[in-house]
Amino acid sequence: MKFDLIVLGGVAAGTSAAAAAKRENTNLKIAIFQKEPFISYGGCGLPYVLTEDVKSTDSLFAFTPEKFKLEKGVEVFINHEALSVDFDKKLVQIKNDNNIFFAEYDKLIIATGASPIKPDFGYSGEGIYYVRNPEDINEIEIYIKKYNPQNAVVIGGGFIGVEILEGLVHKKIHTTLIEGSSNLLGDIEPEIHEYFYENMKNEMLEVKFNSFVKKINKNEKFEILIDDEIVETEMIIVSIGVKPNTNFLKNSKIELLKNGAVKVDEFMRTNIKDVYSAGDCASVKHFITKEDVYIPLGTTANKQGKIAGKNSIGKNESFSGVVGSLITKFDDIEYAKTGLSYKEAISKGFDADFVVIKSRNRAGYYNGNSRIIMKLIFEKVTGRILGAQYSGKELLGRINVIVSLIYKNGTIYDLNNLDLPYSPPFSPVWDINLLAASNAIKKWREELSSLHFL
Amino acid sequence: MKFDLIVLGGVAAGTSAAAAAKRENTNLKIAIFQKEPFISYGGCGLPYVLTEDVKSTDSLFAFTPEKFKLEKGVEVFINHEALSVDFDKKLVQIKNDNNIFFAEYDKLIIATGASPIKPDFGYSGEGIYYVRNPEDINEIEIYIKKYNPQNAVVIGGGFIGVEILEGLVHKKIHTTLIEGSSNLLGDIEPEIHEYFYENMKNEMLEVKFNSFVKKINKNEKFEILIDDEIVETEMIIVSIGVKPNTNFLKNSKIELLKNGAVKVDEFMRTNIKDVYSAGDCASVKHFITKEDVYIPLGTTANKQGKIAGKNSIGKNESFSGVVGSLITKFDDIEYAKTGLSYKEAISKGFDADFVVIKSRNRAGYYNGNSRIIMKLIFEKVTGRILGAQYSGKELLGRINVIVSLIYKNGTIYDLNNLDLPYSPPFSPVWDINLLAASNAIKKWREELSSLHFL
Repeated sequence: MKFDLIVLGGVAAGTSAAAAAKRENTNLKIAIFQKEPFISYGGCGLPYVLTEDVKSTDSLFAFTPEKFKLEKGVEVFINHEALSVDFDKKLVQIKNDNNIFFAEYDKLIIATGASPIKPDFGYSGEGIYYVRNPEDINEIEIYIKKYNPQNAVVIGGGFIGVEILEGLVHKKIHTTLIEGSSNLLGDIEPEIHEYFYENMKNEMLEVKFNSFVKKINKNEKFEILIDDEIVETEMIIVSIGVKPNTNFLKNSKIELLKNGAVKVDEFMRTNIKDVYSAGDCASVKHFITKEDVYIPLGTTANKQGKIAGKNSIGKNESFSGVVGSLITKFDDIEYAKTGLSYKEAISKGFDADFVVIKSRNRAGYYNGNSRIIMKLIFEKVTGRILGAQYSGKELLGRINVIVSLIYKNGTIYDLNNLDLPYSPPFSPVWDINLLAASNAIKKWREELSSLHFL
Repeated sequence: MKFDLIVLGGVAAGTSAAAAAKRENTNLKIAIFQKEPFISYGGCGLPYVLTEDVKSTDSLFAFTPEKFKLEKGVEVFINHEALSVDFDKKLVQIKNDNNIFFAEYDKLIIATGASPIKPDFGYSGEGIYYVRNPEDINEIEIYIKKYNPQNAVVIGGGFIGVEILEGLVHKKIHTTLIEGSSNLLGDIEPEIHEYFYENMKNEMLEVKFNSFVKKINKNEKFEILIDDEIVETEMIIVSIGVKPNTNFLKNSKIELLKNGAVKVDEFMRTNIKDVYSAGDCASVKHFITKEDVYIPLGTTANKQGKIAGKNSIGKNESFSGVVGSLITKFDDIEYAKTGLSYKEAISKGFDADFVVIKSRNRAGYYNGNSRIIMKLIFEKVTGRILGAQYSGKELLGRINVIVSLIYKNGTIYDLNNLDLPYSPPFSPVWDINLLAASNAIKKWREELSSLHFL
C-alpha cells in the first residue's frame, strides 16, 4: 500500500489538506486514515445541537467518507488508527478492525486532532460525558431522553463549557458549573468577566468558582466531591480542555511541544523532511509574541490544513499565525477576544497599558440598543494595539476591527482614524472602538506629560 | 460683541468643535450662532422616527441650548443666522429675529451644515417634505396623522430615500420611489444592488428607475409628471441630496469646492488664517484618492468638529480622511460599502480587479443563517484593497475588516491572513472576507500565469 500523500486524520485539517493537495495535482494518489467511523464534521457546532440552533449532529457533517472520495478523489479509510510512524522508511503503521499493516508515503500530513483531557475521577461510564465529536452529543441527547435528568454538572468553564451550559439551561436542566479558577472563559479580562457573568445569571444556573473535583462516586445519583463539599447530580459533562492526539509519535524523532503538539513552522513543516502537520494536533505561531503556541480552533485547523496540503506537494504558502481570536455567547450575551490580555502582555515584556470603555451597540435612542464593554490593551510608547476584549451584543463588528489592525501592526492612532460606517441601527456615532482609541491616546498623553514633570 | 472663538452652526460639527475647544481651555469665551431654534440633534436617526425604532424626534436631541451652555460653558445663540463674514476685520454679520449686528472673533469655525436640494417642481407647501431636521419629520408625522394618506411618493433613492421608504412602508402607506438612475443607493455595485433590491421587494412598494420628475401639480391629489406619465399621490418626500450651507460665503475670498463646500486641509484649516471649517459644509480628504471630496456624514462631522475645535485654539491634530464608509438597511436587508467602487477605481486610474462572493452570515447549519453577497475591489499588482460592498445581514463585522485594512494599505494577502474570531452563531468557518481574499489571490495568480504565456 503506497500513496503519494498520506493524511492522518479526517476532520477539519485533514480533509482540507487532502482536498487542497488533490486540487493542485489531480494525478496524485492520496489517502486519509481516520481513527473514527466518520470524517469532516463541524465540531464547533456541537454545543448548538443541545440549544437546538443546530437540528441534529447529522447537519454538522460536510461529507460522508463516500461523498468525500467521490467528490474529491481522495481514498478515505475510516476506523483506521495510526499506531506509529517510521520516518526513515516512510511507513505508517496502521490498525483497523481486522489487522495491523504498513502504508508507505511519499509525503505525510499529521492531522490527528485532539481529544478531551479525561482525568481519573474514579468513575467513568453512562452519565458522564465529554464533548468532542458528534457521538458524544448523541450520547448526551439519548441519556437526557432516557432519564430526563432534572439537574446536571458541567466541569470546566472554558468557552466550550459555557456553550454546553447554554444547551443544558435551554433544556431546563438545573446546572451547576464547577470551575477551577476564579472566572469563566480562560484569560478573560476581569472587567469583561464581571459584565459577562452578571449578564449570564440565570435561575437554572449555579457556578462554583475555585473548585476542583477530587472524586466522583456513583450511587443513586452522582456524588461529586469538591474540597469538603459533595454535589449530587444526575449527569456530568466534562470540559476541561484538550490534548493533541500524538501519543503514537511519542518515541519518534518528530519534535513536539511540551503538551505533545507537533511543532510546525509557518509552512506547516515539521522538523522531519516531507512530514507536515496541521490542526488541533499541531502548534501555531502567535503573530504578536512569535512563540509556538497551542490554540486549537476550527478556523486555524482549516487554514493550516489547506496550506499543509498545498505545500506537501510543492507549493510554498505560509501561515502568518494566530492572535487567539475568539467569540462565543451564552444566550444573547456575547464575549469576544483577540490578541493578548493585559496580564499576558505584561508577562511577555510589553510596556502595556489599557483602557476600559462602556458604550452601546446602537445609537442610544435606537430601539433595542444595549451595553457593550470593551478593554483595549496597547503598548505605551508606540501605541501599538496588543489586544482587545468585549462583552455585550453585536460584537463581531467591533472585534474584527482590532484583529485587522493587529495584523498590520496598527496603533491606537490608526484606530482613532478609522472611517467606520455609521447608522443608528448599527452603532452609536462614536463606535466603542473609536472611544477606546481616543481614551487610550488621552491616557497615554497624560501619562507622558506627567512624566515630563519628573 | 467679541469672542475668542465663534462657531457658526450648532449641530454635529459645531457642538463638537465648541465643546472640544472649551475642554482644552476653559477660560475661552466661545459662542455658537445657530440659524435654527435648536441645536445638537442626531440627524441620522430622523428616518427611524418613522419606523418607530426611535420614539420621537425629542429623543434625538443630545442637548437643549440651555443644557449645552450649562454643561459646556459655551454661549449658544439660536435663531441667529450668519449673513456674511469680513475675514480681514474678523467680523461675522449676524441676523436674528430683531436685528442685524456684527460679532467679532479671534478664531472662527464654520460648521453651518447642509440643506436639502430643493428643485423648483412648480409646487411647494403642505404635503411635500424634505428630510433634514426634526421639524421636517414632525411635519411629516402631523400630515400623516391628519390626512391618513394611503399612498406616497419618495423622490430620490439614495440611502436617506431608502430609509424613508422603510418608514412609510412600516406605516402601511403604499409608496412609489422615483429614482433618476437605474439603481438605488448611489454608487452601489450592480451585483450588490441586484441582491439588495431583490430582498427589499415589498407589496407596499414600487420603484420607478430612470425617472425624472418634471413638474408637480396639486389638485385633489398631487400629480407628479415623469416623462409622459403622471403619478398621483397624497404626499411627497424629496430626498435627492444636500448642498453645503455656504451661500453667505459666496462672494468672500474663502476657497470653496465647486458645490460650495468650504475647502479644508487635514487640520480643518481653510485658506484663511484663523478660520476653520467642519462637517456637512466642508470638504474632506479621501484617504485613497487623496482628493478633496464632499461626503457629508454624521461621523465625519463629529470627528472634523472635534479636530477643528482643538486646532482652533492651538492644538495640532489631523484628520486622515474618509473612505466613504456607509451602512444602511431596508427592514432586515442591509447594505454596506467602503472605499472605491470598481467603476470609481478604474476612473481614478487604478489597475483594479474584483471578485464577487456569496456566502452566509452564520454557519450553514446554524439557526437563522442567511445569505451575504460581497464584492471586493483590489489593485492587481500590489493586491492593495481599494473597496468592498456587501448586502445581506450582520454586515458590520464584515465591512469593518475592510475599513481597517484600507487605512493600513492592506492587501488581499493581509486579508487572507486574518485570524477572525469564529463560532457558528457568528460566521461560517471561512468568513466571506476570507473567501473573497483567497478568491482574489487565485484570480490574480491565474491572470498572472496567463500573462506569462503571452
